[in-house]
Amino acid sequence: MIINQQIKLLNILKFYGQKKSLDILNNVSNKIKPFISDKRLKRFEDSINNRNKRFIIVCENLDNPGNFAAVVRSADAIGIQNLCLINEGGNLDSNFEKYDRVSLGSGKWVTVNKYYSTTKCIEKLKEQGYSIWASDLSATAFQFDQLIFQPNKLTPQLSYFLSESIKNVNSLNNNNQEEEELIKNLAINELYNNNNKIVNNNNNKNFIRNDEKIALVFGNESNGISELMRSLSDRRFYLPMVGFVESFNISVSVAMTLSFLKMQGVITPDLSPLDKIKLLNKFVLSSIPKNKLVLEKLGFDSDLILKLIK
Amino acid sequence: MIINQQIKLLNILKFYGQKKSLDILNNVSNKIKPFISDKRLKRFEDSINNRNKRFIIVCENLDNPGNFAAVVRSADAIGIQNLCLINEGGNLDSNFEKYDRVSLGSGKWVTVNKYYSTTKCIEKLKEQGYSIWASDLSATAFQFDQLIFQPNKLTPQLSYFLSESIKNVNSLNNNNQEEEELIKNLAINELYNNNNKIVNNNNNKNFIRNDEKIALVFGNESNGISELMRSLSDRRFYLPMVGFVESFNISVSVAMTLSFLKMQGVITPDLSPLDKIKLLNKFVLSSIPKNKLVLEKLGFDSDLILKLIK
Repeated sequence: MIINQQIKLLNILKFYGQKKSLDILNNVSNKIKPFISDKRLKRFEDSINNRNKRFIIVCENLDNPGNFAAVVRSADAIGIQNLCLINEGGNLDSNFEKYDRVSLGSGKWVTVNKYYSTTKCIEKLKEQGYSIWASDLSATAFQFDQLIFQPNKLTPQLSYFLSESIKNVNSLNNNNQEEEELIKNLAINELYNNNNKIVNNNNNKNFIRNDEKIALVFGNESNGISELMRSLSDRRFYLPMVGFVESFNISVSVAMTLSFLKMQGVITPDLSPLDKIKLLNKFVLSSIPKNKLVLEKLGFDSDLILKLIK
Repeated sequence: MIINQQIKLLNILKFYGQKKSLDILNNVSNKIKPFISDKRLKRFEDSINNRNKRFIIVCENLDNPGNFAAVVRSADAIGIQNLCLINEGGNLDSNFEKYDRVSLGSGKWVTVNKYYSTTKCIEKLKEQGYSIWASDLSATAFQFDQLIFQPNKLTPQLSYFLSESIKNVNSLNNNNQEEEELIKNLAINELYNNNNKIVNNNNNKNFIRNDEKIALVFGNESNGISELMRSLSDRRFYLPMVGFVESFNISVSVAMTLSFLKMQGVITPDLSPLDKIKLLNKFVLSSIPKNKLVLEKLGFDSDLILKLIK
């Protein structure tokens, strides 16, 4: 009982902390926006409004920084905000400092968390509520395109054929047009509501609810994921392959995985107002030379602000 | 009238020609199969049974053979049988002879037609009934993921939500289970039949019928498709991008395009019996040293056979 009250109190504190941060960062944002062009600002806002944090890309022990750069580009273009780069032992770090140069600058716009330990990275992700899905060819892996993702958004194909089928069913039942519209909305709304019977009475093991947070892990170019990663992961998956090739280049694997998800309507914008204002300030500040000085001149505690947007 | 009769006669001759080729090649296949292991034969057959010829990948004037090698690998893995490689003027040919070495051998299992002229390649494809869709960022391009492809196969997601929605509609209408099954089948069958009202009364310009043959064209790494290609193409398309990156690496573009199609259930096996036996003989012969000699010893006209499977 006492513990429950403490948790409640902590949540209240957290809520007010976030509210306070939001106010400060909105204030900063309003003052620094005039330092960049409207066009650039619009580009930042458009991009941020399309970002997704439900999916995270994790790369473990890559040999080639160019591959990570390609992954970053695809993540940026599809709208994934967060990536993790694991270099167990940290021996490759100096090379990986270069990835941003080869990612054509896109590394500036996504958030890359670096880890020198697989265990630490996975612990952190699990703390944040992520399931760990590792790309793997071992016997316990499942074929990625057999999954049924509950969409957040109807894709054009799904929307089209659902409507047509419902129309079809209705014409058999001789319903009128008003009824048809009502039934269509009912049927489509069912897809999004996690408390409905489709989702809760679901005993299909391939069904993935749209509130499951997922970290997609890709391993080394030659050896795949580590044994440690395999043991820490919740699921192992592989992409469908029907030809003679037995594996994809990692940048191709990531691109295909993200496209599969995109085409199921699950990579959709989901950043909170606080996430958004943090990113916006980060992007705007990165475009202003001597930004610490500018923040001080505007009357802000620059260290606090840089900490808040970190 | 006379012309019609001539066409009819030509078609009859073509039919018997194909029938004859099929008989000869089946005979060859039965005699040469024992020269390779059962495991290898099964791999060839599995792969051929998953190949698609409705979609063709065309690469125009690439600078880097490594990129074409990556495209070949993705095509092979997703099940695309045919590619075209255009090098206008032929100046890059010696470099492109090397692509097979970097494609990890997958170039052996797909069919790559080389052209030294964009016009000739496109003429040939149009003759064969292909629409030309070029990847392009110009103003007339449309966003690829907005298209509604009529599926050849229900993807797990589409199948699941169609069934659930129909169940849902039926429960509102108090139908019984038998009726439900009937209505579900009726609705789902509608998707595949080109002569039904969904497809024929369709005035949605984003709707792509499942009998449209499509060549997907990807241009040079820096400059994209040529002006000539732009003017010859039937449609221009681009992949959705929400971030700061303005273009994808070509191997990533191809991978994403193929994944989008795969997830809409449109890249499905579609080779004819003649296509299949040609490929099987080609694959088996490529695994037999001194295959011409072997064919002669088995009593075949090796030149004729090699011509038939070309």
